[in-house]
Amino acid sequence: MDAASFSARAASAQQRILAALERTVGTSDPAVERLLQAMRYSVLAGGKRLRPLLVYITGEALGAQPEQLDAPAVAVELIHSYSLIHDDLPAMDDDDLRRGLPTCHKAYDEGTAILAGDALQALAFDVLANGAGLDERARLQMITVLAAAIGTLGMAGGQAMDLAATGSLLTAAGIEEMHRRKTGALIRASVELGAIAAGRVASAERAALQRYGDEIGLAFQIQDDILDVTGDTAVLGKRAGADAALSKPTYPSVFGLARARELACLHRDRALRELDSLGAAAAPLRALAYAVVERVS
Amino acid sequence: MDAASFSARAASAQQRILAALERTVGTSDPAVERLLQAMRYSVLAGGKRLRPLLVYITGEALGAQPEQLDAPAVAVELIHSYSLIHDDLPAMDDDDLRRGLPTCHKAYDEGTAILAGDALQALAFDVLANGAGLDERARLQMITVLAAAIGTLGMAGGQAMDLAATGSLLTAAGIEEMHRRKTGALIRASVELGAIAAGRVASAERAALQRYGDEIGLAFQIQDDILDVTGDTAVLGKRAGADAALSKPTYPSVFGLARARELACLHRDRALRELDSLGAAAAPLRALAYAVVERVS
Repeated sequence: MDAASFSARAASAQQRILAALERTVGTSDPAVERLLQAMRYSVLAGGKRLRPLLVYITGEALGAQPEQLDAPAVAVELIHSYSLIHDDLPAMDDDDLRRGLPTCHKAYDEGTAILAGDALQALAFDVLANGAGLDERARLQMITVLAAAIGTLGMAGGQAMDLAATGSLLTAAGIEEMHRRKTGALIRASVELGAIAAGRVASAERAALQRYGDEIGLAFQIQDDILDVTGDTAVLGKRAGADAALSKPTYPSVFGLARARELACLHRDRALRELDSLGAAAAPLRALAYAVVERVS
Repeated sequence: MDAASFSARAASAQQRILAALERTVGTSDPAVERLLQAMRYSVLAGGKRLRPLLVYITGEALGAQPEQLDAPAVAVELIHSYSLIHDDLPAMDDDDLRRGLPTCHKAYDEGTAILAGDALQALAFDVLANGAGLDERARLQMITVLAAAIGTLGMAGGQAMDLAATGSLLTAAGIEEMHRRKTGALIRASVELGAIAAGRVASAERAALQRYGDEIGLAFQIQDDILDVTGDTAVLGKRAGADAALSKPTYPSVFGLARARELACLHRDRALRELDSLGAAAAPLRALAYAVVERVS
């Protein structure tokens, strides 16, 4: 699949997920309108929608119907949105800009931002528990996979490691473990949810796809670190140089920029090898692995 | 059931839930030890364990085994702990004292406290998705009920209403709606989870118990408001007068203390009426309704 075809595939997934997200967070409730607005503000603000895309292209590669993939695609994006809101808080990374807009706590207030994140997490589990076209076992598996990916072993743990590491040095193993949890775990879970929706609760394919998810998760975060050094605030939509300003250990700061680039490609190539057994159906997953490393924002 | 027998029943539930909570948050993970410590600090610090008690006595009244009730009991207490951590944050109620100890963000730091709450929420759903002795349908129902109880229609929505109401006046209907969401929804969900564990996914009993949960939830929060005025910091384990200091609308501030006391009893009595059809098995639920209004801490 060439880059243009992949871009078209990604754009159609973006349209589909946006419609599904609008249905999910589009409710009105006068008593808590400000909270709902803050949730919508963060969820509908755009972004690459990488995680939903992974759900769709993994699930479709294994034969799932798009309708079965909407719930897990929505769930991972709601979780991603909540994590950005909380990570941007003053007590965390203290960022003012996200996707070219004021961060949630700047546009609203800190209390509302904390609650918006909290409510989005709950909503994600509600969406999975009631996913259309998915049997009960698949829904429970998805909930288990997602909960593990965002708890202490995953996203929340990675962010805690990030907070602790700010201003200090990390070993190569330390930064890899931090990135695996902070960003990699949810990316891997997105791949797994797609596989589960396709009925692959336990299979060799799911195991290979888990490893694929692991590797592109790491490649994605290394490229994120690289873009923080080489990128431009206007293109990124968030403040370039933010990691350095906070003295955060990153792949470029630990390994140097050239080696960080090599490592991103190394993990991409490992990801690609895991797809060998999946044949032509995995073409979008292959294209995505290249896109993750080649992206400029 | 007299007060002494109820106290003994509550004490045995407290022992059981403490053991189950210790198993759930007792894991070690050197990479994120501080985060895990903050979670344990908040979860194991004590407290009344009202919500797990409701799960146990509701479930047992309907014939569930204690082993089937551990997962939902743990889940509601993890959620309650997370909500206290986030509610105490400087951007919310800014409290320094909880259960006679420094609040989580005082004992650790704000970033860790936010993440501890986030991870506890995820853990609660993980526990429900893997609840022992519960069939798949029951587990999914519990997840749906819990997610609704803590989202915008429940706890997070109620806390948002609380933030918005601080320093302003509320109507009688407004404060009731705020309390129903902020505190009532999780108390009601605790009752519902007990009923679901006992196999009552849809039944007249579950509907009556929902209304019971609604009413004791409201009675509990009205008594909370009363204790903020009449209670003592040393006995409460949290700062007395905190609501007045923040100019929060409360039942005593809206209705006066005498009428607030009447309303607490009125909701208790409504709760009691819902138990009529359940007979002798509901004795602990009756005793709990009295205890909620008579408590001094």
